[in-house]
Amino acid sequence: MVGPFGGNTAAVLLHAAQEHPERLGEPVALTVNFAGPVADGDFTVTARPMRTNRSTQHWSIELSQDGVVATTATAVFAVRRDTWAADEAVMPRVPAANEVPATAMPPFIKWADNYEFRWVVGGIPQPPADGEAPVESDDSTTTMWVRDMPPRPLDFAALTGICDSFYPRAFLRRGTALPAGTVTFTVYFHADAEALAGQGSEPVLGTARAKAFGKGYFDQVAEIWGADGRLLATSHQLVYFKA
Amino acid sequence: MVGPFGGNTAAVLLHAAQEHPERLGEPVALTVNFAGPVADGDFTVTARPMRTNRSTQHWSIELSQDGVVATTATAVFAVRRDTWAADEAVMPRVPAANEVPATAMPPFIKWADNYEFRWVVGGIPQPPADGEAPVESDDSTTTMWVRDMPPRPLDFAALTGICDSFYPRAFLRRGTALPAGTVTFTVYFHADAEALAGQGSEPVLGTARAKAFGKGYFDQVAEIWGADGRLLATSHQLVYFKA
Repeated sequence: MVGPFGGNTAAVLLHAAQEHPERLGEPVALTVNFAGPVADGDFTVTARPMRTNRSTQHWSIELSQDGVVATTATAVFAVRRDTWAADEAVMPRVPAANEVPATAMPPFIKWADNYEFRWVVGGIPQPPADGEAPVESDDSTTTMWVRDMPPRPLDFAALTGICDSFYPRAFLRRGTALPAGTVTFTVYFHADAEALAGQGSEPVLGTARAKAFGKGYFDQVAEIWGADGRLLATSHQLVYFKA
Repeated sequence: MVGPFGGNTAAVLLHAAQEHPERLGEPVALTVNFAGPVADGDFTVTARPMRTNRSTQHWSIELSQDGVVATTATAVFAVRRDTWAADEAVMPRVPAANEVPATAMPPFIKWADNYEFRWVVGGIPQPPADGEAPVESDDSTTTMWVRDMPPRPLDFAALTGICDSFYPRAFLRRGTALPAGTVTFTVYFHADAEALAGQGSEPVLGTARAKAFGKGYFDQVAEIWGADGRLLATSHQLVYFKA
């Protein structure tokens, strides 16, 4: 939470595959593993198509600095075709984005300046006053309207970053900031490029929660919804923490 | 569903990292990408530690046949330490395993012979009688007691297979079998080796559902619970389908 933003690293790796001359179709899945910190400075991204089938393509992607691997990733691209379709998950019932005030993250979270957050439930806990105990919660759910700042049209890279823009769920449960960092992060893209473009630069609705915390790790399950009620992406991550 | 069982392939890839002489700690996350079919015959698994930190280790794993990549994977291993812990997800309220009859899968699903399934809700749809329409469902949830057959003590490899032992969610929604195959599959291990060993060879409770179907793909979100109410693993996958 105090280093470089993993969602941005993930977006850079995905984009490397998207821009590769052998790329087939568009992203349907991305998994990024944060193996080590990315330092300020030059980095090299290598995207390799591992296998290309008739309508799917599997990628292996790596980010390294000075010959040391910092991030690994795999991605699945596909040519998507119309089929039977249904959203089974239900969008949370929330006020419209313009009815929810935008709230800044604490200033130590630098990357958050690239987003506008409108928390519906589960905003980031405020530091307890001197001598006060943190206010714990038994529910790790955050639901928020979110968009890039400055606003830009939604695409796969932007949506990838948004999937990782929830502050760590352990902060909410424990009522305080604590050491935490994502070790692996997955996005499933339910929307295709056309559906994403249709979202423009309006806020999207994100909701995230954890299912289990223990022995140094917790998970996060997230959904990102368009303002029009379409499920754009689902995302999962496993996060290291100390508490 | 008619080829080799992806859960087994995933378990083999995980096991290759576990048995590697440089392995650190135990698995906390695994992502497997099914790039192409695995044919009957010899195969080569290559497991490479990409980066080893003080308490975490990142792996890249590949399965190839005749020099062609069939499966890629990444895994995160870690030395786990005691921390604050909480299961936030709630185990489904179900009858005990011995109160639910074991039901065989249709015989065309060969790999299912390696499991004992006791469906609580969402058993596999029966083929419609001649001239009858399939019985569709608006809920893709399957909840089941499941264990290896013949029974064997639970470990990371067995749990990986169990995470992939749900038949495709589209079968349940559409009321019929249809072409479907997992393209990417992720497991987060919430239990450590000691907790898994404590489960012995008793059935575990699995529950799975999809959030979205469309344009040739659907997702699956699954939880695997011990009979003692511990959340052992959560799992996600993206599945190709035709309908």
